[in-house]
Formats: sequence, structure tokens, C-alpha cells
Amino acid sequence: MFSRPFLPLSRAGITASAYAKPGLSRLQMCTSQDSKRKCYLKSSAPARAASGNRAWSSNQVPVAARDESYSNEVISAFDYDAPLIDSWGKNTPLLSTSISGDGQLVSVLWSDGEEQDYPAVWLRDNCHCTDCCYHVSVTRKIYLTEMSLETEVKNASLLDNGQLLSVEWADSHHGIFPTDWLRGHRFDQSQPDPIEGNRPHLWGHDVMSTPHFRMFEFDEVMESDDALYDWLKMLFNLGIAVLKNAPIEQCQQYSLQKRLGYDSPAPSSSGILNQAKLHMKSYHPVYTAASLQLHNDLSYYTQAKGFQLFHCKQQVTGGGGDSLLADGFKVAEDFRCQNPESFRILTRIPWEYKLAIDKNYHVARREVIRLDTDEEVCQITINDICRAAMLRIPLQDVKKAYVALKEFTNMLYHPDNLVRYKLEAGDILAFHNHRILHGRLGFSMKADTQRHLETCYSDWEIVSGRMRNLKKQRLRKSQGENQK
Amino acid sequence: MFSRPFLPLSRAGITASAYAKPGLSRLQMCTSQDSKRKCYLKSSAPARAASGNRAWSSNQVPVAARDESYSNEVISAFDYDAPLIDSWGKNTPLLSTSISGDGQLVSVLWSDGEEQDYPAVWLRDNCHCTDCCYHVSVTRKIYLTEMSLETEVKNASLLDNGQLLSVEWADSHHGIFPTDWLRGHRFDQSQPDPIEGNRPHLWGHDVMSTPHFRMFEFDEVMESDDALYDWLKMLFNLGIAVLKNAPIEQCQQYSLQKRLGYDSPAPSSSGILNQAKLHMKSYHPVYTAASLQLHNDLSYYTQAKGFQLFHCKQQVTGGGGDSLLADGFKVAEDFRCQNPESFRILTRIPWEYKLAIDKNYHVARREVIRLDTDEEVCQITINDICRAAMLRIPLQDVKKAYVALKEFTNMLYHPDNLVRYKLEAGDILAFHNHRILHGRLGFSMKADTQRHLETCYSDWEIVSGRMRNLKKQRLRKSQGENQK
Repeated sequence: MFSRPFLPLSRAGITASAYAKPGLSRLQMCTSQDSKRKCYLKSSAPARAASGNRAWSSNQVPVAARDESYSNEVISAFDYDAPLIDSWGKNTPLLSTSISGDGQLVSVLWSDGEEQDYPAVWLRDNCHCTDCCYHVSVTRKIYLTEMSLETEVKNASLLDNGQLLSVEWADSHHGIFPTDWLRGHRFDQSQPDPIEGNRPHLWGHDVMSTPHFRMFEFDEVMESDDALYDWLKMLFNLGIAVLKNAPIEQCQQYSLQKRLGYDSPAPSSSGILNQAKLHMKSYHPVYTAASLQLHNDLSYYTQAKGFQLFHCKQQVTGGGGDSLLADGFKVAEDFRCQNPESFRILTRIPWEYKLAIDKNYHVARREVIRLDTDEEVCQITINDICRAAMLRIPLQDVKKAYVALKEFTNMLYHPDNLVRYKLEAGDILAFHNHRILHGRLGFSMKADTQRHLETCYSDWEIVSGRMRNLKKQRLRKSQGENQK
Repeated sequence: MFSRPFLPLSRAGITASAYAKPGLSRLQMCTSQDSKRKCYLKSSAPARAASGNRAWSSNQVPVAARDESYSNEVISAFDYDAPLIDSWGKNTPLLSTSISGDGQLVSVLWSDGEEQDYPAVWLRDNCHCTDCCYHVSVTRKIYLTEMSLETEVKNASLLDNGQLLSVEWADSHHGIFPTDWLRGHRFDQSQPDPIEGNRPHLWGHDVMSTPHFRMFEFDEVMESDDALYDWLKMLFNLGIAVLKNAPIEQCQQYSLQKRLGYDSPAPSSSGILNQAKLHMKSYHPVYTAASLQLHNDLSYYTQAKGFQLFHCKQQVTGGGGDSLLADGFKVAEDFRCQNPESFRILTRIPWEYKLAIDKNYHVARREVIRLDTDEEVCQITINDICRAAMLRIPLQDVKKAYVALKEFTNMLYHPDNLVRYKLEAGDILAFHNHRILHGRLGFSMKADTQRHLETCYSDWEIVSGRMRNLKKQRLRKSQGENQK
């Protein structure tokens, strides 16, 4: 089936003459001999008879000299998924395995009585041997275009006291699968992703005085991986987090992004960093002393950046200038319950937003409440400042659209929902721009003060991405300690 | 209604004492006197009697001394929308206006017989006077929370030979609306956006030899705004474009991004620039000489970057190394027609993708074919390299998911769909990562050659954003010439 694993284009009528030439890398030259070698893994654990409501049998692959180094390398590749599986490390032994459906299905039974069927094609697609998978990056080498979906398993057996499932397909290709990995991959019965699977913790006006929230010191998050993980976890769950005492002399936005895995903040049409302070010639409300309505940034982008950070470098000493924050997901869920018809309208009306900045003039159409394929709220777009007049809906729906938008906006401003927090010099406020609405109170200026926020955007992806990386490090560390 | 245009929080129980203090900017201090002043625009064009199937009447606002400079400023603010409206500049005169529905609706009739009704609330929301709108940035000052949705128009009349509609609301607030702007805003009867409204031009294997495609010189695009516009237009329509002879000595990715309005390419977890060349220790297929399957980048991001650019700095002299490209939108549309059931499956199956890079470990769930709210294909995600084993669907659907994925992938590789183009040193290939699949043929290496692409990401938003900006410049220029 994988006779030409690097020539998927043959069926497209394209021939790459390069393949026939000398000097090919080993990856291109993998021979059937290589594959064969991997078929001979020694079974150190004969499968035990299974208890259960099923007629189990177990097969053994031919046993020859086992290549320990090879199988350890393959097993290590599976370890890559450890941070994605909460039950990883339990090593619940497999008791038994069987083949059914003319080799189309492999069933396993664990020692705790749990059972699972795996389609032969899914196992084949996820073979982690060196022919099928680039180790280290653990990316797939094999082409779906070259794979037969009718692939059959001819042998399935257990190895290493039930720690491994060994599978041989009809073409004599062979793969092994660790019990932890199988246990973590059970199709719609799989446990949720340890990070993404958590529903966000929704909050109201008092979030900052609840146990879910705490202030973090900038230095501790920059220096301690544990503090960084905890800060990111809070940020991921609440959509907001604050760092205290970030030195205001230097630009900390780059340092923080580097700590999170990015070489710089993400550029937008207003630059990489934005200095939000009072300008003499105020052309946009951000640069005035006026209050700012609750809004999401980059509403005029089809794909608005999800991560936003304000480093407060100076704050007005007089009244006002407080930041306002509301949890758009929380309010949208309340709105869905209390006002389902207006909720439905806001998931459909294509409001448009526009802004010309420097060399770009952006226009985007976006729903106020965006739902994902599971009908969960995944993005809020409120921005009256940049909302365009263009409203491509029937005339008779215009009033309804305004009514729904106003009802939702009013709910955001409800005292139960609104957080008022006055940033202090040195604070970094980080938040999820798809979820959190932000605004500010107007302020008065004395001659010797200024309100100055150094702001930037980034990708929300790095919040969970960095957490998963830290989790991986932790797992490696504890694995290392266990082996001592 | 707008008695406290900058105090929307009063209903939230929050008072900003700042507002009561001295030193407020003019924007905060706008008085009812200011508003009144703007109510007295001289009508220079009494409304003419209308022909048509409707009983038209016209009202006149009280006439006093007209403030030319004020009305010119407001009219200029409307000019901001000129690049968004194809018919801008026709200046079709308004013939007549009338009020109905207890002041809830203003109707207009143009000299060419076209009619349109405008809800009072929509007009009020889009008033461009200096109390309601920050000029220059043309952003909204007024708060929806403070606006009555029951607002009524008490007077509507025509000014300047039917070039302006003048509206007075029940609270004596007053606004004017130019005919071109009204003509461009007709709710679901509005003309499509001149840029975004165009359906992409779908293409097959021969795209580069069709009149829709041409190569552009790097220098001409960097120097001529007309060439830049044409290049962006082609890129926007086709999803791919090439620049020839970009000097390979320096990093041109920054120069090109600056030309497009960004200070730098967008960072990702693999850096800001990526040097794709053969590494001795190949941990990922990109850095090998192996072929690369057709794929979309950043499949492991929930929100993958839409714009991707390859600057070829060196190409192998032997065979292979050709880039492969396919139009995912075109193939998806064909797939929808030819295989509707598998199409439907691919819009629903939540395949997962993962990759650990440097400090991040990303996981994302994405449909292979994403539809927008109009059921149009808006994003393709194919990436077998990073596709995870996790498939959170019922076991009995697994085989169907593979069948659909393989059918679609095979179609991408069909000779009718596949472009093969070998980048030359100096080429910059730019493409829409949500639409275009890219891959490469494997290649052989001679001792003295290397294949080196300097790659980066950016936001697809700047393609249309920059076009609109250039269009705005053109309109200003031609306006200036007309006034000579």
C-alpha cells in the first residue's frame, strides 16, 4: 500500500525525476527491508485470557530478535501526546485483543474492564514507526492518497505485560501502540483535552475579589515556569489577567511575548506597539480624554487578533481613566437564556465595521455573537466606534437589529457584569479580545500628568500553546525523576 | 436623547467624577448650543415635485445663516465611504423626500426614479455631525445605550439641488446626508462591496497561462501604486501571485510588508521569518529533501494566518523542488457538486491538528471545509503532516471521515487542479493560506546547491485593506484634478 510513500503525485500525472536519481536522503530511500526489520518485535508478555462479555482471542506476531532501541524510539514518539491526555501515566495493562470484521477492526480489553474498538484504517494512519512518522516533531510521513482505506489487520497481539498493542497489517507493515495512548484515543468517548476541553469560567463584576482571580508579579511570571503556568491558566479560564510591577522604563511587551514563545507582538495596521495617550490632534477617541465605550478591538478585521495586552506606563492622578471590562461570553449566555430571539438575531445580522489606518482601509462583516459548530459562543464583536452604516439586511429587519444590539449592549453595562479597574503604572492587563469587552472612563488631565498605555496584540493560540509546552516539560521532568 | 453623550455608564451605577471637573476637552463639552448651530443650514435647492408611483411631499428645515465650513466638513466625513461604493461620484440628484410612520421612516426619490426608505433610527445612528462623529477617523462618538430607538424625524428636506438630504429629529438634532452616500446604503439592495463583494476567481492547473494571471516585477510593485494595486487585485481574486526579481541579498519580506502597511511579518511559534532549507538534522519534513504533500499551514492554530509569502533565495539546479499549488475553493466547489455527502461530512468532522514548536505546543480542531454564514466555502484545512490521531466522533463514522478526506485529497491532486511551478531565485510567491494548498516535489541535492525559501506569514486583511487605501488615494487625486 505504501509502495511509493513519497510519490503521491504519480496519480496526478506528475513524475519527479529527482526520485530516480542518486543522492536521495535516507527518508526517501526507506526500503521494504527496513519495514520488515520492524515487524519482528519480541513479545515479552503473552496475552492473558480476558474476562468480559465478549469472546476474546489473542494473536502473536512472529517473534524474532527484538530491536529494543527501535521500539523505544517509537514509544517515545507516542509520549509526545502525553500533555494531551489526562490519564497518561496510569499504564493500565491491556488484557486481550481480537480482530473482527475481516480485519477491519481491532478490539482491546483493559484490566479494569474497559473495552475499545479501533478501525484498522485509523491504526494504520497513526502508525508511529520511522517509515510512517518523523520522530522528534512527530509529524506524519505517509500520504492518505497512497493508503488503502480497506487496509486489514492480520495479526494483533499484546507485548510487554499488556503495555503495548502490536499490530500487523495484511501487507506485513507493523506498528505498536502503547496502552496509555490507546486509552487516550477513544473517539467520542475520549476524555476532553486537558486545556481546551475546559469551558471558560464565566464571571461578573466581582471577579477580581473571587478566589478564581489573583494578581501576579511580573518578575515571578518571567522567572518561574510554575508561576507562568498558573498565570496562563487563569488567563485562559477567565479571559483576563494582570501582571504587577512590570518595569516601565523598558518595553516589556517584547519580553513578555518572548517568554510566551513569540519573537514580537503581532503587527496590525496601527503598528506593532501602540502608544495610547492624549494627542493634541485627536483623530480617534483612543487619543482623547473622553470615555471609551465597551468594545472589542480590530472589529474591522475578518479575523481579529485574539490576544491583547496593555502595559500601563503612566496613569492620571485625578479622577477617571479606569478601565472597564466585561465578560462577553458570560453576558451572551445570560442573553441567550433571557432573550433567545434577540440572541438569535445577533448571531445572524452581518454588521459591518471599518477603519482606515495609515496604509490600510479595513472593512469586515461580523456577527455580534459568533457560535462555533457546537453552538457555543466563541466570539463577541461589539464596536460602536467603528461600526459602519452598511447593513445588508432587509429594511424591515433594521429596527429589530438595533433593538437586539442595544439590549445586548445594555446588558454588558449592567452593574452585575461590569468590572472597573484603574490600571497603575507597571500593570500589564492581558485579555482575550474575542471574549472580553474593554472600555474606559473619561478622565481629566492636570498639566503634569499623562495617561499612557503601551498596547499590543498577539495570537490567543500562544496562551494554551505555552501551557501545553510547560506541561510537557513538567511531565518530562517527573519522568526523569521517576527513572532515577 | 444624547443629553450625556459621554456618560453611558450612568445606568450602570458608575459615575465618573472627572466629567464634572474643569479642564474637559471640547469633545466632552459639546453643548446644546453647538448642536443648535448645526440645525440651521441654508437650503439652496427647494425640493422639486416628484414623478413616481408614490405621493411625495417635501419639508424644509428652518433656514438661517448657513455654515458652509461646517457642512463641508460633514460632507467630507461621508467621503470616507467613497472607496466602498462603486457608484460614488454619480451625484444623482434627490428629487423628493417624505416622512411616514409617525416619523419613523424617511423616504427619498432620486431623479432616475429609484426610491429608498430609511429608518429614522438608522439615520440617527449614522449622523456624521461633529457631535456624533470623530472626523478624520470617521468613527462614531455616540452611544447606542443612550440613543432612543424610537427616535422620530420631524423634518426632512433637500438641499443643494438635491445633493443633500437634511434631517431634523424630534429633539432638534440635525444631520445631513449626501445623495451618493445614501445611494450606496440601501440595506439588502446595496451594491456589493467593490472589493470583498467579488467572488474569488476559481482556477485549475492552467491558471498561470490564462489572462487572469501575470508575473509582476518586484521593483514595479514596490515603486508604482498602480502596479501594487493590480498585483493585489490579482492576489485577492486568484489567491496566488508572484513577484519576480526580488533582490536576494537583503531580506525583502520586511520591505514588502512595509509596502503593504505592516511594520513586519506576523510572528508565529516558528519565528517571524523561517528559513526553509535542508538541515542536517531533519526533524520536520520541511527541512528534508522529501516531497511535501499539499497542505495548508498553521493547521494547528484555531485561527491560522491567512497570508503566506515565500521568497526563493536559492533553488536546486537538479530535478525536483517544484512548488505545487491547488485552489482549495475551486476543488471544494467541484466536490460539493460531485460528492455532496462527503462534502457535508468534511464541513462537520472536527479533525484535530497538533505541533510542538520551540516554546509552544499547539492543538486545534478544525473542519476540512469551513463554510461562512452564507454557506460559502471560506477556509480549507488539509494537513496530513500535522493531523492528530484524535478524532472525537462516533466510532461508526470514522471510516466515512477517512473516505471523505481521501476523496477530497485525491481531487486536489487531480491533474486538472494541480499547478506545478518551480520558483526561481528572486521569486516571491504570495498566497492565501485559507484557500490555496501548497506542497513541493522532492528533490536531489548536489554538493554545491541548496534550496532556500525565506518564508513568513501575515494577515490576509492587508490585501484588501491596502487596495481600499490605494483606491481612496486615487479617488482623492481625481477629485483634486476635477477641482482644478
